[in-house]
Amino acid sequence: MLDVKPPSLEENFSDLERLERALFPLWGSGRAPRCRLGTLQKLGRLLREEGGKVTLTLAELGDALEVVELEAGDRAYRQYGLAVDVGTTTLSLTLLNLYDGRIIDEESDYNPQLRFGEDVISRVVSASRPGGLRAMREAAVGGVNRLAAKLSGRNGIEPAEINSLSLAGNPAMLHLLLGLDPRYIREEPYIPTLNFFPVMRAGEVGLDIAPFALIYVLPGVGSFVGGDITAGVLGCSIDRSEGPTLYIDIGTNGEIVVGTREWMMACACSAGPAFEGAGVRSGMRATLGAVESVSIEPGSLEPRLSVIGGGPPRGVCGSGLIDLFAELFRAGALDRAGKLLPQEGSPRVRQGERGAEYVLAWAEETATGRDITLTEVDLENLLRTKAAIYAGISSLTQMVGLSLEEIEKVVIAGEFGSFLNVESALAIGLLPDLPRERFHAVGNSSLIGAQLALLSRDFRVRAEEIARRMTYVELSADPSYMDRYLSALFLPHTELELFPSLRERLPNLFKEGIHVS
Amino acid sequence: MLDVKPPSLEENFSDLERLERALFPLWGSGRAPRCRLGTLQKLGRLLREEGGKVTLTLAELGDALEVVELEAGDRAYRQYGLAVDVGTTTLSLTLLNLYDGRIIDEESDYNPQLRFGEDVISRVVSASRPGGLRAMREAAVGGVNRLAAKLSGRNGIEPAEINSLSLAGNPAMLHLLLGLDPRYIREEPYIPTLNFFPVMRAGEVGLDIAPFALIYVLPGVGSFVGGDITAGVLGCSIDRSEGPTLYIDIGTNGEIVVGTREWMMACACSAGPAFEGAGVRSGMRATLGAVESVSIEPGSLEPRLSVIGGGPPRGVCGSGLIDLFAELFRAGALDRAGKLLPQEGSPRVRQGERGAEYVLAWAEETATGRDITLTEVDLENLLRTKAAIYAGISSLTQMVGLSLEEIEKVVIAGEFGSFLNVESALAIGLLPDLPRERFHAVGNSSLIGAQLALLSRDFRVRAEEIARRMTYVELSADPSYMDRYLSALFLPHTELELFPSLRERLPNLFKEGIHVS
Repeated sequence: MLDVKPPSLEENFSDLERLERALFPLWGSGRAPRCRLGTLQKLGRLLREEGGKVTLTLAELGDALEVVELEAGDRAYRQYGLAVDVGTTTLSLTLLNLYDGRIIDEESDYNPQLRFGEDVISRVVSASRPGGLRAMREAAVGGVNRLAAKLSGRNGIEPAEINSLSLAGNPAMLHLLLGLDPRYIREEPYIPTLNFFPVMRAGEVGLDIAPFALIYVLPGVGSFVGGDITAGVLGCSIDRSEGPTLYIDIGTNGEIVVGTREWMMACACSAGPAFEGAGVRSGMRATLGAVESVSIEPGSLEPRLSVIGGGPPRGVCGSGLIDLFAELFRAGALDRAGKLLPQEGSPRVRQGERGAEYVLAWAEETATGRDITLTEVDLENLLRTKAAIYAGISSLTQMVGLSLEEIEKVVIAGEFGSFLNVESALAIGLLPDLPRERFHAVGNSSLIGAQLALLSRDFRVRAEEIARRMTYVELSADPSYMDRYLSALFLPHTELELFPSLRERLPNLFKEGIHVS
Repeated sequence: MLDVKPPSLEENFSDLERLERALFPLWGSGRAPRCRLGTLQKLGRLLREEGGKVTLTLAELGDALEVVELEAGDRAYRQYGLAVDVGTTTLSLTLLNLYDGRIIDEESDYNPQLRFGEDVISRVVSASRPGGLRAMREAAVGGVNRLAAKLSGRNGIEPAEINSLSLAGNPAMLHLLLGLDPRYIREEPYIPTLNFFPVMRAGEVGLDIAPFALIYVLPGVGSFVGGDITAGVLGCSIDRSEGPTLYIDIGTNGEIVVGTREWMMACACSAGPAFEGAGVRSGMRATLGAVESVSIEPGSLEPRLSVIGGGPPRGVCGSGLIDLFAELFRAGALDRAGKLLPQEGSPRVRQGERGAEYVLAWAEETATGRDITLTEVDLENLLRTKAAIYAGISSLTQMVGLSLEEIEKVVIAGEFGSFLNVESALAIGLLPDLPRERFHAVGNSSLIGAQLALLSRDFRVRAEEIARRMTYVELSADPSYMDRYLSALFLPHTELELFPSLRERLPNLFKEGIHVS
């Protein structure tokens, strides 16, 4: 809130100059903020409406300061912002009060682009069809707008009171949301239009908040490591960590970062969206009705489920799938290649339309009225995903000259990390076998990074530094990667000695002998 | 034109980064230009269309560089700009080729806002009526758009190829064209919304050229001395002159500047639009059919006319009015107070509906089929205008401690200056009696200044310096101004000794005695 002195015949500065002079104590005289024409058109009236009291919303555009909004009177406490994480599967929004930095509310939903394809590659292909990019852009922008409207509506806020927004996402999602052609991301030599985004306007992006609200996009490293990872690294302060930290974001792709405050390396593995519930028949997001943990009785193979919300199950989310995978293995229902073994004593393993399957819940117990099953195809997807991630972790740490034991902290990002049972993840060989206290689930750290970037310029500068400092490593350029991947296509791994702590939990496994053919 | 290197697996910079790197040799690495989302959306395609050859149109927005347009291939020779002078009476446009700085074409027409009032005050009053500001803005913007369309159409240029525009005008005209409320300009303490305009976009201003074309507005000094004067001072290089230069812009108002490269003072006199042809019954702009010079035979009072274009006359423009005024006086048809004297020997002085009048052309000789006359009301308007200007010149020079003789150069700006007969102007006492070689008619110097500002940043910086350095003097605060004005309400002046050179031309005048009561 500013108090702008009225003019007089002696001090007959223009309206704008008096406004600038009122800002001198705050910003110094060398930095007059830029006003758009729309702001100037109401300046004369607003300066005279409440005796010169006005509320100014300023933003930094590169080196320049700009007046985003001007209102008569004191409106400083009604300044809002949105942090947005554009995931391939999920859109997540946080509404913040920019006056005190408080989180007001959150919303998330499926990314409406899912109808154009479940993974990044199929989206890029869809975008290359006539009208595809435009339709996909509208789907994503429309999805953000609907969630933003929900948030503002139920918190009594006008969309025009939201005057900044930060955006984190992987390169393809950011390109698609902004109408940038993503084709060159997926064609050799894999070039995004840009990694460091200029500050944009809500109007040009198509977002239904204040039309001149500033849009900050978290910067990325390249075509395979984007602003979602920069945001996550910022959100977890890996760029400030003393000892080596491993950051794993298991979303639709698997991105892995190893680093300290001195250095950071990142890679991406084509893990597929299995742990986000896509590509798995009964998979779903970790929302109401999702089975989020499972234990299975050996012999009978009868499961005990825990369902989000407590009602009848509708499907299985990532943490439930990992539990299920691990429990089936522990109960002896799977061989080390992840294949279902015929079971005499249980009706739960049967031949379905697409080969052998395990029935987690019978039709009469479910919310959908259909059996919830895990098929062999699902199991193969899960196996490939976990192998890609483990091989990525193992390649990346080896490249930076670290053994797995030297990793002091493992940060598990992504929505499903919050529900993840680390024991199950270790049992299937998704994560390296480290002391359990080193594992930390942080939830949607990309969204946390976006919130930080929204709140302060310091965090935006740090995000830029992270994106500039982080070195991208192309896994396919590592000749050992494919071997590591193939070795990880077993439960928990071809080399059992990599998972010594499982000896206690899965004694039979170790009795059978260590190597598989 | 830039040659942007294609990417490779080794040099996998983003499209934007490669564009920025191609600019390093021109601008240094610290100054990456900002791209709008619309530009980024086509960047990937354009960089691959003609082997990396692209044409970039860059502009400076304050300290920041911005990409205004991006095209594939070499299009550097097709970059156009418009310089616009928004006069109260006349809109004038110049189309320039920005590649070589060449003037391509010019157009001008009446300001369509004339229907809202002929002078600035009546315009400001009209703007305060409901819907008035909006209608007047649309009228002015529409007028500029029509002239711009004429210029681009007849020179085979697409409006989208015009990517910058400079705008000079007095404060009220600039406010009205930009939709800024002009009311505070005319209410004590006379405050404009702003004097220094941020760079704007054609789209926000409503101009039908490239939507993101940059609009530079020439900065003003205050409510009474605007960007038109800054532009004129720039156009005539008064800010670089060694000796004292007097700059007189006789448009709808009369603005006067006295200065050297060391200092500049400016004032405004409410001269009225008489010399622009408004407020005078047969007045018109200096276009086809305008009487631009007149001589009158003493005795018979028969006139000899020179008409622009050579056809039958339609009206009288400023220079013609001054000639007519001077010639009637010289022929003895006017007394020293500017009143028509009854004439026995000539049918040209008669009683009309509004008092005595002089018939310059009979109906059968004119293009309109009506007599062209000069009425006593017209004569009074002309007398008041010339008195206001002379008194302004005399007050301002006295305030800066100069005698009139010390003025080394008199620059006469404004459309009518080009046609002006300096002898006539001296005979009626409009201009000070100085050696004739000191007078220079420069035409529309405001438009010249706007052209300079369009062509180079250096000139835009100079325009800012001029506006900051020029001191505005309020004539009404000078107690001697009213006396000077009243003394000038005679032909040529109450004090004949101020016009010694007229002794030869008007010997009778000096015989009659020097003072009037």
